[in-house]
Amino acid sequence: MSTPELHLIDQAVAQAHQAAAFWAESGRQARAALLDGLAIALEQQQTALIAIAEAETSLGTTRLTGEVARTAFQLRGFADEVRAGVPYMRIDDDAVAGAPPAGRPRLTRVMQALGPVAMFSASNFPFAFSVLGGDTASALAAGCPVVVKAHSGHPRLSRAVYEVAQGVLAEQGLPQGLLGLVEGASRQAGLHLVQHPQIAAVAFTGSYQGGKALWQAANQRPRPIPFFGELGSINPLLALPEILERDGEQLASTLAASITLGCGQFCTSPGVILLLEHPASQRFIESLAQALRPLPTHPMLTEAMRRGFDQGVAHLQQAPAVRPLFEPLADGAGPAPRLFEIQAQAFIEQPELREEVFGPAAVVIRARDVDQARAVLDAIGGTLTATLWGFEQSNEQTRSLLRAARGIAGRVLFSGVPTGVAVTHAQQHGGPWPASTAPQTTSVGYTALERFLRPVALQDAPAWVLEARP
Amino acid sequence: MSTPELHLIDQAVAQAHQAAAFWAESGRQARAALLDGLAIALEQQQTALIAIAEAETSLGTTRLTGEVARTAFQLRGFADEVRAGVPYMRIDDDAVAGAPPAGRPRLTRVMQALGPVAMFSASNFPFAFSVLGGDTASALAAGCPVVVKAHSGHPRLSRAVYEVAQGVLAEQGLPQGLLGLVEGASRQAGLHLVQHPQIAAVAFTGSYQGGKALWQAANQRPRPIPFFGELGSINPLLALPEILERDGEQLASTLAASITLGCGQFCTSPGVILLLEHPASQRFIESLAQALRPLPTHPMLTEAMRRGFDQGVAHLQQAPAVRPLFEPLADGAGPAPRLFEIQAQAFIEQPELREEVFGPAAVVIRARDVDQARAVLDAIGGTLTATLWGFEQSNEQTRSLLRAARGIAGRVLFSGVPTGVAVTHAQQHGGPWPASTAPQTTSVGYTALERFLRPVALQDAPAWVLEARP
Repeated sequence: MSTPELHLIDQAVAQAHQAAAFWAESGRQARAALLDGLAIALEQQQTALIAIAEAETSLGTTRLTGEVARTAFQLRGFADEVRAGVPYMRIDDDAVAGAPPAGRPRLTRVMQALGPVAMFSASNFPFAFSVLGGDTASALAAGCPVVVKAHSGHPRLSRAVYEVAQGVLAEQGLPQGLLGLVEGASRQAGLHLVQHPQIAAVAFTGSYQGGKALWQAANQRPRPIPFFGELGSINPLLALPEILERDGEQLASTLAASITLGCGQFCTSPGVILLLEHPASQRFIESLAQALRPLPTHPMLTEAMRRGFDQGVAHLQQAPAVRPLFEPLADGAGPAPRLFEIQAQAFIEQPELREEVFGPAAVVIRARDVDQARAVLDAIGGTLTATLWGFEQSNEQTRSLLRAARGIAGRVLFSGVPTGVAVTHAQQHGGPWPASTAPQTTSVGYTALERFLRPVALQDAPAWVLEARP
Repeated sequence: MSTPELHLIDQAVAQAHQAAAFWAESGRQARAALLDGLAIALEQQQTALIAIAEAETSLGTTRLTGEVARTAFQLRGFADEVRAGVPYMRIDDDAVAGAPPAGRPRLTRVMQALGPVAMFSASNFPFAFSVLGGDTASALAAGCPVVVKAHSGHPRLSRAVYEVAQGVLAEQGLPQGLLGLVEGASRQAGLHLVQHPQIAAVAFTGSYQGGKALWQAANQRPRPIPFFGELGSINPLLALPEILERDGEQLASTLAASITLGCGQFCTSPGVILLLEHPASQRFIESLAQALRPLPTHPMLTEAMRRGFDQGVAHLQQAPAVRPLFEPLADGAGPAPRLFEIQAQAFIEQPELREEVFGPAAVVIRARDVDQARAVLDAIGGTLTATLWGFEQSNEQTRSLLRAARGIAGRVLFSGVPTGVAVTHAQQHGGPWPASTAPQTTSVGYTALERFLRPVALQDAPAWVLEARP
């Protein structure tokens, strides 16, 4: 990478740094107005933006229109959080006279914005997890400027959305440095950004290899910084025989649609179907294979991702004890869906099978009993979601499997499919490694803004410090 | 290290793992009763325990008696948190009909205990940050078993307190595995514990080198886990000329006492005194030197720590541009206090001077103006505390320096000295690296229990799942 390009990164970070103190001390009105203004501008420009997005991603205008709506919705949602005072929350402890431990000074716990955030856009949500996506919205709401590393899968869209945002900043008289854009696909650009001394935190959504490398780079700084990375997830779905006996046919078609939704390019795409040995499970596998095999897909987001999918499938085909459940049809616009199966013990013994295959593929795991199904969940270890079908009743079996699912997942579903993540207060999109490098935080939902705040206790603060309440 | 010793670690972790699901699902009553029971037992046995502690640490019975009171206080405080339902907090979002983004399923956000916690005791708080200290109390309150790595500075006390705790567990019919003890001083034991696949999180208080090595080991696991480490802090104290003109004499004696308190063996011990060029600053330096030089200290906690102090002092003496402010008196029971000075620019240019010297020593930094004082704070970068004297009025100078202090510290004090950390809800004992490896968390105060919980969103959960509310 040439020096001029690194210089552009330095410039973007310097501008973010210059805006950081102002934005950290900004009040509810200014922050909410910016977030609302960004939502409005995005909607106003959506026809042009969606056309660029469709040309770059092939995701289809229906999906992209929905994604713009979601992106605007979450910008407005974070504006509401700001208006409700969430980033300005305090805890007040009065002084107590007397000796410690009961005696104590007056303490006021306030939240401090971390400073400039480096944000790595995702490929698969060109609006909702890109320039003005959830990470940017939550960081701005928390009082942090953002330097976006554009995804090379949609560079023109990134630039166009960035320009829309710059228009809003100019209109509102806010510093340009509140949102920076770093373009170019080089690995070195990402490392340079993560290790920049004026970057205070990192938000990342993407591949395991890429994310792990950036996480390591952040940890190798002279002063490591918080790194909020979502690195991949295989999202097990466990269906008990009873529900499959009742609804197997319909569930198979729901699941087939989820596996191929967006060509399987969702972080919550179900990659593993865990079934107990039972005739109903067998019939379900047949229905699923039948439903899945003919489903068409659209082209994948980038050629590199298509190569990654083909390699992942080849790896599954060569793995010991993995068996294809059908011969795939010829590829259409996108790759033909794939379905494999493996016995639980063989899955547990091959850690590399826990790696996400990004695209329209899934693996059926056959467990001989509940204990073995538990062992599969334990072996998966970290996942964004776990879906449990047939858990209406409490019994030893459902309690035991729920315990295992809660132990590994950020979200546990009892109906429906994991694709589609609502933006709410209760949402949790994270989970033990590798689902997240910071499993106690979420990248979707309103508590996402907590990632960019740090508590500071003010001891015996004078009135002017405490009155300065935005 | 011999295999039998590693085997003992494996055994302690296995017992913790066996108790983990039971404790994660335990209710308010059981958890609060355990914490209260531990507090009572500690108090009942305190005469014998303090005698052991005094023989091992030389901290003095007054201090140790106070520390037992603090330890019992915080055990009871966490019992109150449990009774108030803090670890069982939920966020409920009702389902909303319609298409996304507004339409959504029902989501319930619950908190999930992480699992067995490896806890590394501190040397300098043989009760309050050791076997039954703040980390253990907060982890048990959160629903996590704890495996304590005893500090080699007080092995007999660790064993005695562990046995007191085992008595309480037995009396209450609780699994022995809720509290494990790993003894021995080897580095390998610590690494083995941190990398054990059944350990879910680590809490550490100690040296920069030791803590960083364990943090790296946790990050090198196949599945990295949360690491809550407090690695050292130099706790700058900044005094403006005006307050020194008024109260310099008295403040000097207060500060001298803080520097030598506990032989300077506090993580919040003020290691850097930052002053603006002014005649009152000069007089304050002289008063401080006069007050500090004759103060007696008790022996340091361990011989290794004494060697570390001597090396730190030697390093300061050899550093370019560092000047001793007085010839130390001969050592008494403990080392004689030391005071050095350096110009701000020279301090900024020598990053190694930001390393904590654990013991009764401090460095005066002379800044020519507010901008340079800001630059010193920025260079320090991460600290548990920053103390600001003379900040009663809001003006450009105080606002600018407060902004810098908030940017680097977990706690900002406007009066008094940083030694002494109250256990309250608002307390924050953490800060950017190296003060903490997890600057968004605290190891003192009641929000410390959040470290050991992880959110899980339950989507469309059936009634039996939501009713199972402890």
